Amino acid sequence: MSALPLCMLLAAGAHAEAPAEGVRQVPSFALPVSPYLSPQAQESVRSAVIHGDPTAKLDNAAVLAQLDSIRKGTDQWAYGEIAELRKRFAVELHHETWGGIPVVRVQPRSAPADPANQRLLIELHGGAFVFGRADSLGLLEAIPVAAMTGMTVLAVEYRQGPEHRFPAASEDVAAVYRAALARLPAAHIGIFGCSAGGVLTGESLAWFAKEKLPMPGAAGLFCAGGDARYGGDSRYVMAAINDALLPHADGTLPIMEDLYYGDVDFRDPLVSPVFSEPLLAQFPPTLFITGTRAAELSNVSYMHSRLVDLERVSDLHVWEGLGHAFHLDAKLPESQQAYRVMARFFAKHLGTALPASHPAPAAAAAPR
Amino acid sequence: MSALPLCMLLAAGAHAEAPAEGVRQVPSFALPVSPYLSPQAQESVRSAVIHGDPTAKLDNAAVLAQLDSIRKGTDQWAYGEIAELRKRFAVELHHETWGGIPVVRVQPRSAPADPANQRLLIELHGGAFVFGRADSLGLLEAIPVAAMTGMTVLAVEYRQGPEHRFPAASEDVAAVYRAALARLPAAHIGIFGCSAGGVLTGESLAWFAKEKLPMPGAAGLFCAGGDARYGGDSRYVMAAINDALLPHADGTLPIMEDLYYGDVDFRDPLVSPVFSEPLLAQFPPTLFITGTRAAELSNVSYMHSRLVDLERVSDLHVWEGLGHAFHLDAKLPESQQAYRVMARFFAKHLGTALPASHPAPAAAAAPR
Repeated sequence: MSALPLCMLLAAGAHAEAPAEGVRQVPSFALPVSPYLSPQAQESVRSAVIHGDPTAKLDNAAVLAQLDSIRKGTDQWAYGEIAELRKRFAVELHHETWGGIPVVRVQPRSAPADPANQRLLIELHGGAFVFGRADSLGLLEAIPVAAMTGMTVLAVEYRQGPEHRFPAASEDVAAVYRAALARLPAAHIGIFGCSAGGVLTGESLAWFAKEKLPMPGAAGLFCAGGDARYGGDSRYVMAAINDALLPHADGTLPIMEDLYYGDVDFRDPLVSPVFSEPLLAQFPPTLFITGTRAAELSNVSYMHSRLVDLERVSDLHVWEGLGHAFHLDAKLPESQQAYRVMARFFAKHLGTALPASHPAPAAAAAPR
Repeated sequence: MSALPLCMLLAAGAHAEAPAEGVRQVPSFALPVSPYLSPQAQESVRSAVIHGDPTAKLDNAAVLAQLDSIRKGTDQWAYGEIAELRKRFAVELHHETWGGIPVVRVQPRSAPADPANQRLLIELHGGAFVFGRADSLGLLEAIPVAAMTGMTVLAVEYRQGPEHRFPAASEDVAAVYRAALARLPAAHIGIFGCSAGGVLTGESLAWFAKEKLPMPGAAGLFCAGGDARYGGDSRYVMAAINDALLPHADGTLPIMEDLYYGDVDFRDPLVSPVFSEPLLAQFPPTLFITGTRAAELSNVSYMHSRLVDLERVSDLHVWEGLGHAFHLDAKLPESQQAYRVMARFFAKHLGTALPASHPAPAAAAAPR
């Protein structure tokens, strides 16, 4: 692999280089919007291509300089989306503290009356361990999942970088989980999240194993795999397709999460559980959600195949033509499909039934 | 989408164009071999990049002109591989005729003695509906699957193009299936194949439904989805990565399979079952095997998500960093993982146990 860094540097040039050590110099090509997408999703992909992600080209020094506005901008955008979600999904929101950690408890009107049938899901928001909050990016995901599953969802306000460093977030999730275990059996608790929240879901399972806590009944790693410094094919393909961050001189791709991880060892199973078979062998049934335009696709596929080879229950779903965290746009038909997949998975593995309104494909679950 | 053909033509140029109608002009980039691969698979990917696929750049006129040598070359290569497989997997081969169609019956020594526990799999070889035979590409897949499952596998010598046209292959598979139904219940029969054989598996299920035959107990669409003129993201990405066939002027990508399909309607569910929900709703439990460097990834992902949304039992496995039909190189650890996935899937859904030798991860199943 010694020729790899040189080839990565050459990648910025317009001329094709002879392949070395298996590095493929992929020529420029045109990628149309997938014809398999719904009209709504096609329109969404077109808009995304034109407008782009304003944070995609920032290096971490620039992120730090603009952190306040990135955080506020994200939250303001999410608050607008959440106002729309609350018109469609019947939930009550309660700001509480579990195990000393702030959470937003999302209580769906579709929850079963019998306490024996009640289930709890812990939700971990995205935002690269740097931005986003439980009540912003967290609720975007927690509200539909609560309504669709009829389960209580706790969106966790875990500590992030750069103010805090690994393992602060894992510790916070474990504190919430211990408080949950005081109320319900582990088999009735699930844990999930998207993007950094999906990474943190895997890291939390690793932390629970280290602390000898019982594993929850199910987990969802959405928009995330088991390698916190995720790599593989899709990272390079998507860096090109999304015109995102350029590679470092050593060929690796930078991640905003470094502001939380610092100089951690990314092969540490508490950071990247995929590298430890004894740990993976303890994983509960795990659901993966990703897309063919998502940088994490390779990382997710690899994590799924490792769990499967260890004969763990693990379920992979890849949405064609869609990118990272697509399901946070709950209006897309494909997002509604993804939420139905999540709802069926958690109901099956936490041993309960879905709300009666669940199967209706067109309508949102439990509308007011 | 009116700007799409123009953009596709511009794709050949080195200069980035402004995106139109959501078409993304992806810049040239360097793609390293995935670090998640086993050393053997990394070496395999390096060799593939350097040597390339000699048929990848042929148009169909060139394929026709060289058809005899493509067929003979494929078969000769496969015969060498099969000789190696027969040293590792304990099977007997019987050339027979089922329902008037030639098959190779692969009988594993690991088959259960009790007739009540015997199961049958129908295997459909790849080769773009133009090349490959039951006793060449077919046995490459049928031998490991027979040994790993302990099930009898019939590799079918179905009719291909350009000598024959759609639906000749579907008719031949149905004839073999009727003969199988005379011996075993449908629930004890599975059907699978890779590449064109995977496409034909879906088309055969559609044909069985049309003929009102009972559905088999399980199906495997390997290296293939449910759209015979497969498209979506991965087709464009892989055309660039593999330096394969260039797009037509109308933006579509040519396929060698046209030599079999002729001017068929690709939206016909007998050709592309993914476009018919009433048909998909009749599908048996279906397993999908693909890779992140496989042109069919998008097609497979879409087919899987359609089946899942219709609440069919469907299982998707994507191998990171590997391409089309990777599992036909049975020496790769990743291929052995894929064969274990297939074996567990068929055993579960055809209601039987695996041979005792199956779980050993390092050794091949049932070595002589």
